[in-house]
Amino acid sequence: MDAVQRANSGHPGMPMGAAPMAHALWTRHLRHNPRNPKWFDRDRFILSAGHGSMLLYSLLHLTGYDLSLDDIRAFRQFGSRTPGHPENTLTPGVEMATGPLGQGISTAVGMAIAEAHLAAVFNRPGHTVVDHYTFGICSDGDLMEGVAQEACSLAGHLELSKLIFLYDDNGITIDGKTDLAYTEDVTKKFEALGWTVLACDGMDVDAVDRAIGVAKANGKGPVLVRCKTTIGFGSPNRAGTSKSHGEPLGVDEIRLTKERLGLPVDREFWIDDDVLATYRQAIVRGEESEAEWAGRFAAYAEAYPVEAERLSAAIHGNLGDWAAHLPAIDEKIATRAASGKVVDAVSTSLVGFLGGGADLTGNVNVPQKAFGLFSASDRTGRTLHYGVREHAMMAAVNGITLHGAARGFGGTFLIFSDYCKPSIRLAALMECPSIFVFTHDSIGLGEDGPTHQPVEQLAGLRAIPNLNVFRPADGNETVAGWKVALESTHTPTLFSLSRQALPPVSPSFSGTHPAEKGGYVLADFPTISGPRVVLIGAGSEVQHCISARDLLVERGIAARVVSLPCWRLFDRQSEAYRFDVLPDDVPAVSVEAASTFGWAKYAHAHVGLDRFGASAPGDVNMREFGFTAEHVADVAASLIGR
Amino acid sequence: MDAVQRANSGHPGMPMGAAPMAHALWTRHLRHNPRNPKWFDRDRFILSAGHGSMLLYSLLHLTGYDLSLDDIRAFRQFGSRTPGHPENTLTPGVEMATGPLGQGISTAVGMAIAEAHLAAVFNRPGHTVVDHYTFGICSDGDLMEGVAQEACSLAGHLELSKLIFLYDDNGITIDGKTDLAYTEDVTKKFEALGWTVLACDGMDVDAVDRAIGVAKANGKGPVLVRCKTTIGFGSPNRAGTSKSHGEPLGVDEIRLTKERLGLPVDREFWIDDDVLATYRQAIVRGEESEAEWAGRFAAYAEAYPVEAERLSAAIHGNLGDWAAHLPAIDEKIATRAASGKVVDAVSTSLVGFLGGGADLTGNVNVPQKAFGLFSASDRTGRTLHYGVREHAMMAAVNGITLHGAARGFGGTFLIFSDYCKPSIRLAALMECPSIFVFTHDSIGLGEDGPTHQPVEQLAGLRAIPNLNVFRPADGNETVAGWKVALESTHTPTLFSLSRQALPPVSPSFSGTHPAEKGGYVLADFPTISGPRVVLIGAGSEVQHCISARDLLVERGIAARVVSLPCWRLFDRQSEAYRFDVLPDDVPAVSVEAASTFGWAKYAHAHVGLDRFGASAPGDVNMREFGFTAEHVADVAASLIGR
Repeated sequence: MDAVQRANSGHPGMPMGAAPMAHALWTRHLRHNPRNPKWFDRDRFILSAGHGSMLLYSLLHLTGYDLSLDDIRAFRQFGSRTPGHPENTLTPGVEMATGPLGQGISTAVGMAIAEAHLAAVFNRPGHTVVDHYTFGICSDGDLMEGVAQEACSLAGHLELSKLIFLYDDNGITIDGKTDLAYTEDVTKKFEALGWTVLACDGMDVDAVDRAIGVAKANGKGPVLVRCKTTIGFGSPNRAGTSKSHGEPLGVDEIRLTKERLGLPVDREFWIDDDVLATYRQAIVRGEESEAEWAGRFAAYAEAYPVEAERLSAAIHGNLGDWAAHLPAIDEKIATRAASGKVVDAVSTSLVGFLGGGADLTGNVNVPQKAFGLFSASDRTGRTLHYGVREHAMMAAVNGITLHGAARGFGGTFLIFSDYCKPSIRLAALMECPSIFVFTHDSIGLGEDGPTHQPVEQLAGLRAIPNLNVFRPADGNETVAGWKVALESTHTPTLFSLSRQALPPVSPSFSGTHPAEKGGYVLADFPTISGPRVVLIGAGSEVQHCISARDLLVERGIAARVVSLPCWRLFDRQSEAYRFDVLPDDVPAVSVEAASTFGWAKYAHAHVGLDRFGASAPGDVNMREFGFTAEHVADVAASLIGR
Repeated sequence: MDAVQRANSGHPGMPMGAAPMAHALWTRHLRHNPRNPKWFDRDRFILSAGHGSMLLYSLLHLTGYDLSLDDIRAFRQFGSRTPGHPENTLTPGVEMATGPLGQGISTAVGMAIAEAHLAAVFNRPGHTVVDHYTFGICSDGDLMEGVAQEACSLAGHLELSKLIFLYDDNGITIDGKTDLAYTEDVTKKFEALGWTVLACDGMDVDAVDRAIGVAKANGKGPVLVRCKTTIGFGSPNRAGTSKSHGEPLGVDEIRLTKERLGLPVDREFWIDDDVLATYRQAIVRGEESEAEWAGRFAAYAEAYPVEAERLSAAIHGNLGDWAAHLPAIDEKIATRAASGKVVDAVSTSLVGFLGGGADLTGNVNVPQKAFGLFSASDRTGRTLHYGVREHAMMAAVNGITLHGAARGFGGTFLIFSDYCKPSIRLAALMECPSIFVFTHDSIGLGEDGPTHQPVEQLAGLRAIPNLNVFRPADGNETVAGWKVALESTHTPTLFSLSRQALPPVSPSFSGTHPAEKGGYVLADFPTISGPRVVLIGAGSEVQHCISARDLLVERGIAARVVSLPCWRLFDRQSEAYRFDVLPDDVPAVSVEAASTFGWAKYAHAHVGLDRFGASAPGDVNMREFGFTAEHVADVAASLIGR
């Protein structure tokens, strides 16, 4: 409450009410090493109710992570390591960014999937080297969110027994009492989803402790521990009310609260020495835990040197020698199919490569032919049927990737990127190199019509900071995109792939490809003397640029074709390179079967789609909406005239 | 199956398996008038499983709507009225566009809310003029989607007894058997959400009929009728398999199916005369139903002339004389608060004005002070607590608005537009004039940090066709935005509003305001001789443009300030007007605390934010990221130099 008061903003109620359950979990169960927050086999802890960040910062400081009281005094200030909601890129011990409700618990499902898979693949009789829980605290707000409901249904289906969430059941939301909007029978619902539900007094440390013990021993799928708590516990006038949720208690109320709790009323950020000493035992316990694990790992390495080396490399971020297996794809092929070929080419050389689809698994070409399904009965499989749960899928993909020694990817139609945008954004914010595979990426998908045809999606996605949106023109550019994606350590990659077959237009992939630069000259100005124009295409429309160039040459106009599969990568090239590709004294036309929104950055006229599409065969749509060589050439020629 | 075969694409299985339940509903229960698809008191029917569009088109043709066999022969062809997924803007009798799973059932919840509210407000003892059911058919895909789970939880909470969905429980998804991904206990879950769940053999018309009868009489909240069905019923080799889901059966299999079903094997699009005659009775029944209702309405009009006139006007699209009540707002005020003032100013003059928030109801200023809460116990209230269910909220807002005689609006933070984007897009596609109120629209929200700070959201939303994104600079522009929103009949409006107070900068609202044009000159070039520059601002950054203009004048540069609250409206002005506002021979700088993505269309340099924000007080953020008069002036001056 002192930190929130000093910041004059924040959420004191949740940390105060959830402190007993956090105490039980962090002092009696959580296996972690404050001196090595990245120890591989630690239990993961996810504060899904991210607004309660001060609870997590308190725990991190108390247990000896590199987070000082001065850091906490800087709560919610510019440049601090204690932002309003937890951010894994700023604070040691924070597993992921939380705050957007529902994301934490949904991402945790992915972490539990990764753990189950790696354990099944690497553990051997008598040698357990992957073995941890994924714990978390969630709120009613988390549980109301659709993404969490998808994720919890999935977790129940997959019987993820080592996933244990404490539900901070405090009966209060921002608007008032939870029952203003939320009256479902949570226990019954979670049981229907395949969870075991336990209930306890969340203010009773021993009761929570016992419930967690039962949960760990459960073994029959994920566990929700309903902890009845009092939000703002200790505050004489605000406990149990929404007034304690999202604003400072005020200096007077803090004084009263300290009085009631038996704390020195004139001290801020005060920690009892005994309390600190008790908590700091986590350092020794953590070092012992990791040392014990290291011993087990050494024995494993002796017995299974190959497996141990693979796992060890994966833990350190090297999932395998995939790069050597990237193929050239020179045929006419849908880029979704090309993507599937790359997945198959690299899969056996990658550890923890877990893909899946949201009920369009075959359509989006994500299955790895060399591996089976990941299911409740087989954890060694690598393809997940996520069901029609796009949002939970992409959150789980993030969780798999954040876990370490694994890389998640998931696929669905590009239009459904709308359904999972919050998880895509969070990957970018978390610097988590997830791979999002979206197919059927334009009106070229055809008859399913405008409800299924992306128009504005590419603009919205390209505008996300730290996200590589890659829309390849053919098979070889698709390979280049996968190279970028798999090399990436801090930036997620999003593929925008065609349903329809595309002719080969770009150079054959040979370990490298110019598309890795994001944009490049695919066909240069011909040596004719005439006005010049640049045709910039992306994805399935690059082919029309190439044909239009021929038409323009016939008309005495010298056209260059630039393929621009990834704006972000191109923008990060040197100014000299960019000007070389797109000379600023030559007019340019953009060609893409999508909204023209954003293209003015590169081009002066546009062949695009600033309306919704139509239900018709894909080639008819393309023609009707002007994605033809003739129309591109006409637009380019008209630009010359201006 | 003939239509899908002719189109050589589509989904035959669902229509074939769901035909018996649809027959029971449409011939024995649904009150509708094929000769007046817009009859106000009709039962609404929502095909949430929109991929089964041929089921709906069949029903519409059979019951006598203006949809011919030739229309059906043109299934999925360019320009037809029978697109791959239903579109309300193309086909009479289609209530909404469906296809993106989960949207139909969630939007239906809004329709049921509107019905309950209007019934409570207008019906009188002995005079029932609003009284219909909202029926629908949903699939397992619908029920897996998070938005549907949010919506169903909400519907149970609100005890919407006249909402009845038939669940096409066919055990098959695209990937294979549903239990590949979906093993929850659906009945138990829906009971936990407060629904009554009935089960029946979905292939038995009488059984479905009886279940619907029980559902209508239930009165204890919404009802889910689980209908066990056989996908692709009748097809000897594909019934009950995923092969019948999403592709034509093939001519051979169609022949076998017709044989098995006793249909003439050599006829396509064949309808038995007796069948047609039976179905076409819907025309007479429909006209009788509407006439009976018109009689009731006449008696009501005699007894309650004022109410009848208000309701009648609302049915015809005139919700009231709100325009006369629009205030001027000249004070320094957060635009979210200004929006709340407008809501209160117009609320009593509007029929069916139903607003709500997703657990931030007060923060986003949506409650109407003159009215109470809409709840299970009071249907006359106008403010809904949607809970932390942003997606279901905006889907319900669409349903309220589509219902007629009502206008829905909903509010949350702009960052959470990501959570409900699919419903926003669908409103635009459906030409449904919903009002989406988003607040806390930049890093100016402050300490909650980057997980809560929109950056790329505006770009993604502005790129949606047929959506007015309105980001007002002050109180009066906010009023202008509401005028545009409430006048709109075919275009939804999305507000982007500030958390922080903004000084008045624009003219006082006086029935009209230049912001209605989307963009206008707020402060013109001063009469100095010097180079010229245009500063284009939106929302909370316009104030900095005005201050920067003064700084530039001091430096001998003549700056104009253009306020651009709504790109779409501005783009629809005449070319002459647009060039007058933004002369093409004067360099321009855009100023907005958001991604610069898209701004190159109007400006040559940008003061924007192409990274994630930070947790810090809002004014600190603004300063640190360059949203100051000084920085704007510097960027403008540097542009002159180029």
